[in-house]
Amino acid sequence: MSRKYRPAEPPAEVVGSELDLQSCKADDFVRIVRNNNQRGLSRVLSMVENGHPLASSILHSLFDPERLCLTIGITGPPGAGKSTLTNRLISYYRRHGNKVGVIAVDPSSPFSGGALLGDRVRMQEHASDPGVFIRSMANRGHLGGLSGTTRDALEILAAASYNPVLIETMGVGQAEVEIASLADITLLVLVPGLGDDVQTMKAGIMEIGDIIVLNKADRPGIEQLELSVNASLELIPDPAARPPVIRCSAQTGEGIEELADAIGSCTASGTGRKEIALRRTALVLNSIIREKGRELARTLIIDRYGSIEEAIESILAGETTPYRIGEILSGFLKNKRENENECKRD
Amino acid sequence: MSRKYRPAEPPAEVVGSELDLQSCKADDFVRIVRNNNQRGLSRVLSMVENGHPLASSILHSLFDPERLCLTIGITGPPGAGKSTLTNRLISYYRRHGNKVGVIAVDPSSPFSGGALLGDRVRMQEHASDPGVFIRSMANRGHLGGLSGTTRDALEILAAASYNPVLIETMGVGQAEVEIASLADITLLVLVPGLGDDVQTMKAGIMEIGDIIVLNKADRPGIEQLELSVNASLELIPDPAARPPVIRCSAQTGEGIEELADAIGSCTASGTGRKEIALRRTALVLNSIIREKGRELARTLIIDRYGSIEEAIESILAGETTPYRIGEILSGFLKNKRENENECKRD
Repeated sequence: MSRKYRPAEPPAEVVGSELDLQSCKADDFVRIVRNNNQRGLSRVLSMVENGHPLASSILHSLFDPERLCLTIGITGPPGAGKSTLTNRLISYYRRHGNKVGVIAVDPSSPFSGGALLGDRVRMQEHASDPGVFIRSMANRGHLGGLSGTTRDALEILAAASYNPVLIETMGVGQAEVEIASLADITLLVLVPGLGDDVQTMKAGIMEIGDIIVLNKADRPGIEQLELSVNASLELIPDPAARPPVIRCSAQTGEGIEELADAIGSCTASGTGRKEIALRRTALVLNSIIREKGRELARTLIIDRYGSIEEAIESILAGETTPYRIGEILSGFLKNKRENENECKRD
Repeated sequence: MSRKYRPAEPPAEVVGSELDLQSCKADDFVRIVRNNNQRGLSRVLSMVENGHPLASSILHSLFDPERLCLTIGITGPPGAGKSTLTNRLISYYRRHGNKVGVIAVDPSSPFSGGALLGDRVRMQEHASDPGVFIRSMANRGHLGGLSGTTRDALEILAAASYNPVLIETMGVGQAEVEIASLADITLLVLVPGLGDDVQTMKAGIMEIGDIIVLNKADRPGIEQLELSVNASLELIPDPAARPPVIRCSAQTGEGIEELADAIGSCTASGTGRKEIALRRTALVLNSIIREKGRELARTLIIDRYGSIEEAIESILAGETTPYRIGEILSGFLKNKRENENECKRD
């Protein structure tokens, strides 16, 4: 018997590669995740992506605000070398005995498989390592969207004891920006020659990065890039609030130790365990408010008009407007309370 | 008496610079907007920004899905020359007799006043022209957020007969991406030397631009930029679906006519009046679903826990999880229906 499975928890034990995941209940999946059965983990992540009826129960059981799992967002323009950097960080944390999770939502990333040039070679390096779990996210299908799925995948990987979890995104779409906000620490990866205009820096740096990584530091133009980054950071009045700027070369590995140190002191100098739990909880709750709120509003409109399309028809026919529908949605809770009170009075 | 005011509508008439806007009702504000009283218009836009109780009524009265108002989003990295281009387009449409509205939500734009270098000179050019109305948006305060405010400002400017309305944004934050999606046509402005990497192009072009504007076409590097843009566009399988690429120089005015023609044929060749009304209505309704849904979900949580903060406390205390709260929100409508049925049965 593999030492990976605890005898006290039979269902997880019997769910090996030979057994049927179809017959599992929510509790079984919870155990599968906690025991880091990789095949089962993949299945649970797919269930979450596809909005499976058990997904919410599983997530409820796995959620633990006090769990320490460092989530590191890695963002920046395509071509900045995010994937190579991700690879270096995986190796670094593996050497230090950590199990590393990776969620890739960058369409240009070789991890998420979106690279049009098929640059998948680097992925192989860690594919056979059982201490590394890489998941690509592309499903925008169900209501929570890409950011809802990423939020849930993060909880699941954390529950399976992956720590840190790296989230690779590209700051282009709305979903990607939401996803970046899920991370504890965000690395903004920049390279010489790729939009190193002072103003580009201003926009990116102040909004996104906790640590600015100047990658490909062996390239010409690195001095200029660092100068303009620092010039932008000087616009942040409090020097202590300015993010550290780390030069590295993901290609050669130079500077990766310094980067890992910066990540470490970012967490250490920052907030305590309670504050992290508070922040994580608020993030997840806000994300769920967004997702379920949208579901509620749609359902109420469908209740009244039959479908969203019919509501739109009604607007086009001049019978109502989106603003009137907005008022009805706002008034709904008021009416609900009044109805309840009337119901009680009857 | 100014010919601007119609005698048949007394309240709008009396609301001049000397009169008190405080005493106006929703209908008065509707007339003020329709008559394009600029001081009143500013007031109504502020009411919308601040979530004034009358705002929703005013917007309901002003909404007209069939109104023809071309909304042109202008987006791109800071330094791409968006503001200079906006100025050129204002001049172009003014020469053709249009009243032009501008909503600036780009923090680096001189219109929105966010330019750290104080590049406000260009704004003066049109400030005294009564046929141009420029509004900067910065208020992220109320629930609808920046994109809700922009959506509403757009309706108001359209109702005041501004056509086209230019929306200047920078594709960085979540709100900015949402805002860009409100426009009928989006111009993605690129310049040589600013992130003209093939992959940056891929990301930006395919997601955002209906027309790709290569600004500062007199600069070195323009050939390379155009080559890499075209190479990226070739990834779109259907040649007819590829956005046109227009070279121009906002500084000298060269290419602006061609750009305006491209905008014109984009609208003409595209969809009919009905399709525009349908698209506009769906956009506004979706935006309201997002805004009101969030409000609904928050209210339900507050009903149950007292406040969002208390819900978070309860999660931190291990009494519930965000996922359980999500299930409660989902179950709410089901319960509501059951309660209503029980109420009827009583």
